[in-house]
Amino acid sequence: MAVSSRIKEVQQAALSVNRFYFQSRYGKRRSDPTICDFTFGNPHEMPLTELVSAIRSHAVPGNESWFAYKASEVEPQRFLAEHVGRELGLPFDPADIALTPGAFAAISLVFHLVLDPGDEAIFCEPAWFCYEPMLLAANAVPRKVPLSTPRFDLDLSAIDAVIGPKTKLVIVNTPHNPTGRIYAADVLQELASVLDRASRRIGHRIYLLSDEPYRRLRFDARKFDSPAAFYPWTFISYSYGKVLLSPGQRLGYMAISPLMPREDRWAFQEATFPAQLAIGWSFPNAVMQYAVPDLETLTIDQAALTRRRDRLIPAMRQAGYDPLMPEGTFYLWSEWPEGDPDRHWNALADRDVFVMPGALMNAARYLRISLTASDEMVERALPLFVEAHRTT
Amino acid sequence: MAVSSRIKEVQQAALSVNRFYFQSRYGKRRSDPTICDFTFGNPHEMPLTELVSAIRSHAVPGNESWFAYKASEVEPQRFLAEHVGRELGLPFDPADIALTPGAFAAISLVFHLVLDPGDEAIFCEPAWFCYEPMLLAANAVPRKVPLSTPRFDLDLSAIDAVIGPKTKLVIVNTPHNPTGRIYAADVLQELASVLDRASRRIGHRIYLLSDEPYRRLRFDARKFDSPAAFYPWTFISYSYGKVLLSPGQRLGYMAISPLMPREDRWAFQEATFPAQLAIGWSFPNAVMQYAVPDLETLTIDQAALTRRRDRLIPAMRQAGYDPLMPEGTFYLWSEWPEGDPDRHWNALADRDVFVMPGALMNAARYLRISLTASDEMVERALPLFVEAHRTT
Repeated sequence: MAVSSRIKEVQQAALSVNRFYFQSRYGKRRSDPTICDFTFGNPHEMPLTELVSAIRSHAVPGNESWFAYKASEVEPQRFLAEHVGRELGLPFDPADIALTPGAFAAISLVFHLVLDPGDEAIFCEPAWFCYEPMLLAANAVPRKVPLSTPRFDLDLSAIDAVIGPKTKLVIVNTPHNPTGRIYAADVLQELASVLDRASRRIGHRIYLLSDEPYRRLRFDARKFDSPAAFYPWTFISYSYGKVLLSPGQRLGYMAISPLMPREDRWAFQEATFPAQLAIGWSFPNAVMQYAVPDLETLTIDQAALTRRRDRLIPAMRQAGYDPLMPEGTFYLWSEWPEGDPDRHWNALADRDVFVMPGALMNAARYLRISLTASDEMVERALPLFVEAHRTT
Repeated sequence: MAVSSRIKEVQQAALSVNRFYFQSRYGKRRSDPTICDFTFGNPHEMPLTELVSAIRSHAVPGNESWFAYKASEVEPQRFLAEHVGRELGLPFDPADIALTPGAFAAISLVFHLVLDPGDEAIFCEPAWFCYEPMLLAANAVPRKVPLSTPRFDLDLSAIDAVIGPKTKLVIVNTPHNPTGRIYAADVLQELASVLDRASRRIGHRIYLLSDEPYRRLRFDARKFDSPAAFYPWTFISYSYGKVLLSPGQRLGYMAISPLMPREDRWAFQEATFPAQLAIGWSFPNAVMQYAVPDLETLTIDQAALTRRRDRLIPAMRQAGYDPLMPEGTFYLWSEWPEGDPDRHWNALADRDVFVMPGALMNAARYLRISLTASDEMVERALPLFVEAHRTT
């Protein structure tokens, strides 16, 4: 009665992750630093010192307007247009870049820029658990398409098949949370063709949201291609929360593909500031905007992520898991050993090893491990993985 | 075609302020520190040193989770429940408090918690220029009611008259931007009766949003009463951006009135976290949450605001203005001298004195002056007000 219908739908869609975080055995143990915590992509080691000094130095005011209202400030817009442009091989203008407090806000911005109530947005499962509640909060309709097992490739014909007259947006997440896959150039090219043909078929343009917060976290020096380079009607969402492992500091951006035809691109550039104002003055705070150039080249230790991946995979195989070798992100996605996933999850929890149940991403036969756990947690957990499943 | 209909409506609603900020004569001159800038509530003096040291000290990590994901952290929730409870005489629980990146996000949160598409929200004009675009972004329907001149009192019978079957929310802003009025206890009590009777008449509960970001900025030691103490179905939005004059640092909160009947209150408490997640992980960043206890008792110099008010008012009267004595906020609201407001505005702009045209708030006969201008700007502007209108 009291709460709006849309937020009731949001509550339903966020129920399993909400319960896991607040009420599960993990919820009760999560603030204990002695557990082996492989659940969320949260830090378990001290922050990057360069991040700390960037915040501290940019908190010292350089002028009277230091903490005045900040929209997307011109300096970080210019800086990012150049640097991200070089990284992705795309000729961004500063006006293509909207600074946001993390990727959440960039995604919400794109949802509002593109979708009206009742419009459909397609994404692939397993997926990050927030696309669905965010679409529902924006009164859009989530349409979910399974990725193809065993390697969780994009299923382009399944995407094509679900496109209908109400489709306005397709979301692609690469590198992919939770599977760690990076979609190759030829797949992205084919996706672009599918979306182009489908747009003509349904009589209006389908937009693409490329959600790329893990873009710089790649194993084995793998290549990354942005979908924005293949499909001109693409928006990028990005966050520094992953690459700096500081999701509490809320810094990211939305970028419009500079390949977008001029009229559409201008219309979205013009609409971005009023949209950000109207969804809640959705700009990063002043200090974080000043820090952009310092943070742009900074990253957590990719070698450590690789080391943890390579320590965990053999032990998990030995324990009967079937992990997928991740190409990017800091996650390890795996099938559980044979038997009941809940019993397996509890057998690990009995040993203070906590992983993310795939059930939270509509994939109960799987689990996700965050490699942001410390080396010490990894070493402690290795024998426990084997032991837990020997006894279940 | 490209941009969603809701954001097109937002663009239309935000057009005049957007043009003023980016394209007007003010837009072209605003970054020049030699102008007399009385437009937005932005700082024109160096920030509070305590704010700077709070940010710097809380940027030093105390543990591994320092920059981990932060929802509403328990410590600031507890702190605020106690301190705001004492300030407003209301027994808040920590769960009544949702930390937000400024009042914008608190307002957007309430809109989503309460309103479904097509639901109506009432507010009084002249008003802050963002209620309307924010309601439109949430697909709600703004219903505007004029305040009663000459003193811009709440017009309770006009509010009552516009309440219909789709009304779900009434917004009251006290101390009021732009007029500087603070609504007295007896008026708020009468408003509560009106809303209670109307809720029974239309068969569902009307909620109240009390937008109070200027609550601690009051002239002449005036009393403040929160509408939340009179009408149990009230949400409060608050920002530290005004009292610390640091709107770029994005810190505020939404509070549920603890007088709300238990079942509704619990339902909103439960819905708040998923709603904040779904509207874009709408929480302040880690450093700003840690800083809450340091910032809570801090304020800009009320004596300086009073001094500027008292310098400006006689000069404006001499120049033919009819200013309203502000009770709160840092604004001065005034009728223009006789004649064409545009010509008057340009006569001031010719002299590098920039004020906010009332036309931006649907009140073309008026103007708003922000007392956050420096003393030096005030002194420089005093003769120019007189001179500008002598010659027009």
